[in-house]
Amino acid sequence: MKIVELSGGVGGARLARGLAALERTELTVIVNVGDDAENHGLYVSPDLDTVIYTLAGVEGPLGWGRSGDTFECNSELARFGLDNTFRLGDRDLALKLFRTYRLAASTPLSQVTESIVTSFDLGTAVIPATDDLLRTTIRIEDGWVSFQEYFVNRGHRDEVLELRFEGAKPARPAPGVLEAITGADRVVIGPSNPPLSIWPILALEEVRDAIREPPSVDAISPLVGGRAVKGPADRVMASLGLPPGNAGVARAYQGLIDRLFIDRSDTSDAERLHDVEVVVSDIMIQEPDAARRLAHELVAS
Amino acid sequence: MKIVELSGGVGGARLARGLAALERTELTVIVNVGDDAENHGLYVSPDLDTVIYTLAGVEGPLGWGRSGDTFECNSELARFGLDNTFRLGDRDLALKLFRTYRLAASTPLSQVTESIVTSFDLGTAVIPATDDLLRTTIRIEDGWVSFQEYFVNRGHRDEVLELRFEGAKPARPAPGVLEAITGADRVVIGPSNPPLSIWPILALEEVRDAIREPPSVDAISPLVGGRAVKGPADRVMASLGLPPGNAGVARAYQGLIDRLFIDRSDTSDAERLHDVEVVVSDIMIQEPDAARRLAHELVAS
Repeated sequence: MKIVELSGGVGGARLARGLAALERTELTVIVNVGDDAENHGLYVSPDLDTVIYTLAGVEGPLGWGRSGDTFECNSELARFGLDNTFRLGDRDLALKLFRTYRLAASTPLSQVTESIVTSFDLGTAVIPATDDLLRTTIRIEDGWVSFQEYFVNRGHRDEVLELRFEGAKPARPAPGVLEAITGADRVVIGPSNPPLSIWPILALEEVRDAIREPPSVDAISPLVGGRAVKGPADRVMASLGLPPGNAGVARAYQGLIDRLFIDRSDTSDAERLHDVEVVVSDIMIQEPDAARRLAHELVAS
Repeated sequence: MKIVELSGGVGGARLARGLAALERTELTVIVNVGDDAENHGLYVSPDLDTVIYTLAGVEGPLGWGRSGDTFECNSELARFGLDNTFRLGDRDLALKLFRTYRLAASTPLSQVTESIVTSFDLGTAVIPATDDLLRTTIRIEDGWVSFQEYFVNRGHRDEVLELRFEGAKPARPAPGVLEAITGADRVVIGPSNPPLSIWPILALEEVRDAIREPPSVDAISPLVGGRAVKGPADRVMASLGLPPGNAGVARAYQGLIDRLFIDRSDTSDAERLHDVEVVVSDIMIQEPDAARRLAHELVAS
């Protein structure tokens, strides 16, 4: 069975870990690049790295970077007046250096990602949604800011008033993205922040169109007990005018998904979800075992 | 008293530490950039960094990098197939990132160096010989190679048959270099490798001309007991056809220096040095105390 997952960072990465553990399945993870940025000249791709590190089993405890990493370089950056709020671990830096170096030699991001995936000996295809420039920008009360400014520097405390996916119109899906989607038996949208992590992927018109092709498109809700498991998804959805709870998630993916997996704690949401088949399950997948169980349920049902 | 030192890496840096400790003196260190290179996209300037780290008292035990540094990033580079023979420490990386980032924004190397000197709160001016591209290339039996290839990758075991300083002809001295030299009361050539570390500076015609201006130009021999204290200076001088011992050092600086400081262990060399005043002294200056003593002797005599 061929499975495609659309993924943001932590939640999507955890689901990918579960899907990758399934037998007799071929997994392709298509990853958001709207959060990509340059930090001190280094190309940083937070969601790609979280997915790769999680699949490799070396992910950091807080959803970014690597487990047991040190921060000698990052601390020292302050000496030179560089903002080191975005914490770059020493081992993590090697990946960033490699990617930046290869991109500077005009290697497309998808090819660099493929090399990295090979370096970690992952059996899963991980593809950036696009090799072109696509950046999520966010209007807060103070004006338009980059994703990093909103999320890292300002700690995602501001109300998100509007989103733009700069560059999405001319951007083309990276090689392999459309082929994977149209050839998939299942497409799964990971439990990521719908507006901030998945919309940037869906902002690619060709991806949006292709999503209607596969036999079945499922989404995993990022909400448990009505709140985001991690990050500001619930607040962002509310401030963008989406309905509360899983009705908001369903609205975010309106016309695109066949089924929505919601958590048992949100069973009452099911009554208000008319346009989509609701599957009530356990969607807390911090633990690899839980992720495997959910992945199994996804493909078995 | 205004002192200018021309410096390569370790030996020159140690002398600079001694000169910087002198009272009522204003020191400018003009540093070789012929060894500069890009490693995985990072701009590496080995001699500048050794001088700065030594003046800051944070130099590594082997003459490169920082004391007590870790190598998490460097180890991890191998995963991505990057050659990590040139060992980049994690804390050292912060300086490299800062410099690369600023250079990419078209800041001249001398200005970036000034920022770094300020960051370490050094009271000494440290200036790259030039902001322009000047690269030492070395002919060995296998052909022409870069300095890093000869020195780091091949462990300076090859015989040096010929040197070229690519870019030296059009290159201009960095801002402040000529002013410092012509305004100096003393110019001192540090105990660096004459062909590999000092010739690239002297390859700048304007520097070479300016060196004739100051009241006195001294050189410190890099030899003790006829051998280089560190590195391949004796072998390189021999293979380039210079006479053995301090006669070779004097020949390397012919017409440019007034005095040559040689080590007590090489007193017998003095007989063969006719064109230059010889000062026999203790020129082993690994220890800061010894460097201060030699610096004091330099300015007092």
